[in-house]
Amino acid sequence: MDVRTGLPVVGMVGGGQLARMTHQAAISLGQSLRVLAESPDDSAGLVAADVRIGTHTDLAALREFAKGCDAVTFDHEHVPSGHIRALEAEGTKVFPCADALLFAQDKGQMRERLSNLGAPVPKWRRVFSESDISDFAEAAGWPVVAKATRGGYDGRGVWMLGSVQEATELVATGTELIVEERVVLRRELAAVVARSPFGQVAAYPVVETVQRDGICVEVLAPAPGLPEQRALDAQQLAIDLATELGVVGLLAVELFETDAGIVVNELAMRPHNSGHWTIEGARTSQFEQHLRAVLDYPMGATTLTAPAVVMANVLGGPSGGASIDERLHHLFAEDPGARVHLYGKKVRPGRKIGHVTVLGEDLSSVRARAARAARRLQEGE
Amino acid sequence: MDVRTGLPVVGMVGGGQLARMTHQAAISLGQSLRVLAESPDDSAGLVAADVRIGTHTDLAALREFAKGCDAVTFDHEHVPSGHIRALEAEGTKVFPCADALLFAQDKGQMRERLSNLGAPVPKWRRVFSESDISDFAEAAGWPVVAKATRGGYDGRGVWMLGSVQEATELVATGTELIVEERVVLRRELAAVVARSPFGQVAAYPVVETVQRDGICVEVLAPAPGLPEQRALDAQQLAIDLATELGVVGLLAVELFETDAGIVVNELAMRPHNSGHWTIEGARTSQFEQHLRAVLDYPMGATTLTAPAVVMANVLGGPSGGASIDERLHHLFAEDPGARVHLYGKKVRPGRKIGHVTVLGEDLSSVRARAARAARRLQEGE
Repeated sequence: MDVRTGLPVVGMVGGGQLARMTHQAAISLGQSLRVLAESPDDSAGLVAADVRIGTHTDLAALREFAKGCDAVTFDHEHVPSGHIRALEAEGTKVFPCADALLFAQDKGQMRERLSNLGAPVPKWRRVFSESDISDFAEAAGWPVVAKATRGGYDGRGVWMLGSVQEATELVATGTELIVEERVVLRRELAAVVARSPFGQVAAYPVVETVQRDGICVEVLAPAPGLPEQRALDAQQLAIDLATELGVVGLLAVELFETDAGIVVNELAMRPHNSGHWTIEGARTSQFEQHLRAVLDYPMGATTLTAPAVVMANVLGGPSGGASIDERLHHLFAEDPGARVHLYGKKVRPGRKIGHVTVLGEDLSSVRARAARAARRLQEGE
Repeated sequence: MDVRTGLPVVGMVGGGQLARMTHQAAISLGQSLRVLAESPDDSAGLVAADVRIGTHTDLAALREFAKGCDAVTFDHEHVPSGHIRALEAEGTKVFPCADALLFAQDKGQMRERLSNLGAPVPKWRRVFSESDISDFAEAAGWPVVAKATRGGYDGRGVWMLGSVQEATELVATGTELIVEERVVLRRELAAVVARSPFGQVAAYPVVETVQRDGICVEVLAPAPGLPEQRALDAQQLAIDLATELGVVGLLAVELFETDAGIVVNELAMRPHNSGHWTIEGARTSQFEQHLRAVLDYPMGATTLTAPAVVMANVLGGPSGGASIDERLHHLFAEDPGARVHLYGKKVRPGRKIGHVTVLGEDLSSVRARAARAARRLQEGE
């Protein structure tokens, strides 16, 4: 508890844009997020009052950081399980706990557990040698999808393999892998829920996520044309997984929609890119919801605030052209209703440097505005 | 400009809840508000990354604070004009400028200027002696309203005088005063606009403000039952005043609605309590709008996000009972859709420690929910 305010202190490990936006949400709750950043210039380090400098692999830094926190949570999945267990053993409330977070850290563990739970997943197997891939591909058909069990994000750590030779080359790198069938999908969806230690779960409307080169570029809320029963199924699946895995905080379930139904692609246990639209588009943002969950407050309403909400990511482009500040002027002049979120990050091609949300009555016009706004902010366009 | 982000730096003098919520808005724009706070425990000091400690009457502190700011603006009206002029003379962009802010600092100057502009104001005069009050009251009728020209807020610095004796006692205190007729009003309204240096003005929907003991307790947006022409008149009046007075940033015009029309009560040139509802209730919050205005960005859309929006202030009550954190649990359990904003302030009876906003279709249910939510958070209830 912060003795100055009588309100709790949440610590978030990692200083990226998720911590930045969580701090922004914490302010409304009378709180000030404590952030463990690698550098004071990290996205959240630039804006939070209580920034500690340290790295998430340093147990001593984590211990020092956790002192006085009512709950510790994460901006990313990279804190070693052993470190989390050490904090838990010392009485720190860490959410999600090590046992739950494992299923967001390790795709092999996740696939195994979900298979055992009977959740819909692609055909898959662990890879110990090249023949595991070629045997699997003989049955499932080439190409197949190989994934590093750990450390992948934004399309990294995922390979489409079309031949034995490609499989052999990948296995030779020594990366721990699983292999999956290539799912023939209509589109990708995401179901985001939050769960409190008490066990209350709140589900957001299911959204469509649009990827380009493995990076999410656009989120449509609610997912257009999704039959109500399928939306309910996806929400129920996310609720069941949150409950079965013992998740506390947010759980984002990335889904493939196929002709036959939905299939789980990935899990994330933190505020997630597929939920950024909730800042303006839902009554309670995913960032506030995550704080409420880890503090065991009752969950907030997840209702939409407009019939159509579209979030478009702003990716760094090639350098040159107008400055980000000039681009912002142009965007604001063009679309006074676009909601901009910039993360204070140095531009690198393909890096997420912000996002834009547009709300309205009609999906197609909202979507066009969001895409245009994101392009306006992109360097080098 | 912040070299780390390529985005501008705004400095706000004063560390209260207005600075706190402005920082929250700045985060979305890729910025981090610089705050001049009296103490690190000030409302904004608790949450902002760039907090300088100093007092607004210390010119050296203001000069140091302004270094590197793209614009300097205010959380309150108490910075001496001479200090602002000194900063302006040294090339700092200060918004509102000293010449405009004067009309929010000094009620005598404000009444004089508005009278000259032909704006609707109550009958009034300056007070140099007791007879100025009694002569005025002879013509206008007792009781009359005396106001300190400077420093009043939340009902302080305003006296209802019913007799020559009361007038004599007040004048004897040596306070610089004006006297006004008591306006027979239906209700109070507020028209909030923002103006940029370029001269663009954006007007929010006119709201009804409900006062208790001179303190705003509730804001209804839009003002229920207000004829469209009167709403337009109020917006146009606020736009004209912002333009005539050369305001840059927000201008809140507090109005009396009478049988005959609208009359200007007070002016404020900063984010204002009558605009807190805009955080969720308008497409662009007043806090972002103020930043956009002082940075000469194009203004954001001011459209309502729901048919009925009600903001209720949370005032400190007598101490005792459940802690603020427990109260928050109860409120969230009772109303998952209520939007809470706590300021991190120590509770004192009557002090504004937060506000709650509720949005919906139907004013009377929204209003009841907001009032109940604010009571839940009030200590000692």
